[in-house]
Amino acid sequence: MRAHNFSAGPCTLPLSVLQEAQAEFVDYHGAGASLIEMSHRGPAYDAVHMEALALARSVAQAPSDFEVLFVGGGATMQFAMAPMNLLSTGQRGAVAVTGAWSKKGLSDGLHHGDLYSAFDGGPDYRSMPSDDQLHIEAGTRYLHVCSNETIGGIRFPSFPDVGVPLVIDMSSEYLSRPIPWDRTDVVFGGVQKNLGPSGMAIVYVRKSVLEAAPTTLASALRYEVYAQKDSMYNTPPVFTIWMTGKVLKWIKGQGGTAALQASSAGKAKVIYDIIDNSNGFFRSPVESRDRSHTNVVFRLPTVELEQEFLAATVDANMMGLKGHREVGGLRASMYAALPEQSVEALAGLMSQFSATR
Amino acid sequence: MRAHNFSAGPCTLPLSVLQEAQAEFVDYHGAGASLIEMSHRGPAYDAVHMEALALARSVAQAPSDFEVLFVGGGATMQFAMAPMNLLSTGQRGAVAVTGAWSKKGLSDGLHHGDLYSAFDGGPDYRSMPSDDQLHIEAGTRYLHVCSNETIGGIRFPSFPDVGVPLVIDMSSEYLSRPIPWDRTDVVFGGVQKNLGPSGMAIVYVRKSVLEAAPTTLASALRYEVYAQKDSMYNTPPVFTIWMTGKVLKWIKGQGGTAALQASSAGKAKVIYDIIDNSNGFFRSPVESRDRSHTNVVFRLPTVELEQEFLAATVDANMMGLKGHREVGGLRASMYAALPEQSVEALAGLMSQFSATR
Repeated sequence: MRAHNFSAGPCTLPLSVLQEAQAEFVDYHGAGASLIEMSHRGPAYDAVHMEALALARSVAQAPSDFEVLFVGGGATMQFAMAPMNLLSTGQRGAVAVTGAWSKKGLSDGLHHGDLYSAFDGGPDYRSMPSDDQLHIEAGTRYLHVCSNETIGGIRFPSFPDVGVPLVIDMSSEYLSRPIPWDRTDVVFGGVQKNLGPSGMAIVYVRKSVLEAAPTTLASALRYEVYAQKDSMYNTPPVFTIWMTGKVLKWIKGQGGTAALQASSAGKAKVIYDIIDNSNGFFRSPVESRDRSHTNVVFRLPTVELEQEFLAATVDANMMGLKGHREVGGLRASMYAALPEQSVEALAGLMSQFSATR
Repeated sequence: MRAHNFSAGPCTLPLSVLQEAQAEFVDYHGAGASLIEMSHRGPAYDAVHMEALALARSVAQAPSDFEVLFVGGGATMQFAMAPMNLLSTGQRGAVAVTGAWSKKGLSDGLHHGDLYSAFDGGPDYRSMPSDDQLHIEAGTRYLHVCSNETIGGIRFPSFPDVGVPLVIDMSSEYLSRPIPWDRTDVVFGGVQKNLGPSGMAIVYVRKSVLEAAPTTLASALRYEVYAQKDSMYNTPPVFTIWMTGKVLKWIKGQGGTAALQASSAGKAKVIYDIIDNSNGFFRSPVESRDRSHTNVVFRLPTVELEQEFLAATVDANMMGLKGHREVGGLRASMYAALPEQSVEALAGLMSQFSATR
């Protein structure tokens, strides 16, 4: 029986995708080898790779002046690569520090470029800044924002519009909300939440950025090399790309980003409604305007009740609901492939639990 | 029917490993989820991860003063990370340029550290340097060598011993030959040849290197962060690690590095013997002392015959024998999991083909 999988990432993938991959796993389309055993320069993998790139473009509705890159590693590597590729000598980037991920974006990135904090929501990170709370210095090259902070459980209800291009870390809302292409230079994110298994970041980068980028970088760190070589300059993470292509096709079949956005908002509303109608038994620690649609963080009246509730979720075949150690409590991560039945099951358990305590 | 898989990487994996992973793929040990859907902080993945790290240590017979790191991406990223982590201000590294891979090691690395060429075997790269051909300048921090050049088809018959620590790129001979730990500071390689599917490098690094390493690096680029966090600072490439663990266990069952070394030498000898006994019909373009054990490059009398032979290999259910575009001809890559029957099949076809032309 499938578990109700509320993990924060890696997390649930469409069952149909897993079953299809399992069937093809040992002998790919009768070739006498698994796809993961084949040369990445051969026709079978090439078709998979190019289709995945095309799907990553079409599902995101990326304009033609953006390149789509598959970069091995995770979004954490992009904390270095973004400033390396965007900041030439003398240029500065800003970071909106709104939680654990953007904080790392700043602390990691400043080793590779001149970055400053345009906002700091710490230590509790319970809300996102409005545009007038973002202090952008003159001559700033870009503003780095984290679309959704998975640990704190907050998201930008709308993306900042402050007159400088955005660099958006979108891992936990990747392709489940529209990207503001007109004011964005780079979008990046790990695929292991909405889009596939772990092992890769997808990066969208404006072509004019590549033209102006520093050339004094190793190939593996340089966006331009990925763009020129269709992300096959070196051996790509074959399995992750193969699976991501399958998930992207599944997303397209669901209706693309618009459908995921509606589904994500709907799933979040089910749980927030339980919280809001629980007479304070369940409590969301974040500003309601900025509540995450994918990571619902909530508390119970006592730590003991939280532990009791967590045990009840395990008994009810649910996984991944323990809150992050930095904030405690519970967290329901609900990414693209999480079925609505799982959300209903959690909602039911919450109602039942609060009614009997 | 399984193909005879001579791909240069990604390449053949043990069939038993593929079948085991296929069986576990959708529902991992009855957990109601695939391992690739589970949190990397959970107990199921943690056990897989720690076992793979332990196997990577034990199969390599890495001494206790080395750390074992799993780094997402490929060996190409290590061309940047090695100088970043080894060279402090004012320090220089040397590179033995013996083919395509070490050439990239130099050209990529020099953006991130002061590197120079201690040898250049170009433009044909048909032999490896002896120790006295390596020009090591005073004060050199390390010598980067590529153990085996997959494109040229040459290997160091023994590792240089020139009084400075080695940094060894070992991708295409990874754990199929012993590592000279006493004179080595770093060993790295992509896993997608001997050890698993693509998507990760394994890095062995001497602990004293970490203590002396620059701290002004983003987390994803800093060896020390991987070492401190058991390579789980950020989300690791779960599938690649899972599969690599299975392959490492298979290697251990085969008898470890010593067994792979003997098997590799034996498989190479079968093909080189056919070449050497073909009265010049088949020809190895490289110095016989330095012949690769994993990538046997060979030529036929004409390009037309090469094309004809390549077509015959395809008819005989063999894949991956086309030579690299930079050197032409044929190339038989024979990594750890390639069965001896596949080598015998190729040898038979070569004998038959040359006898009838």
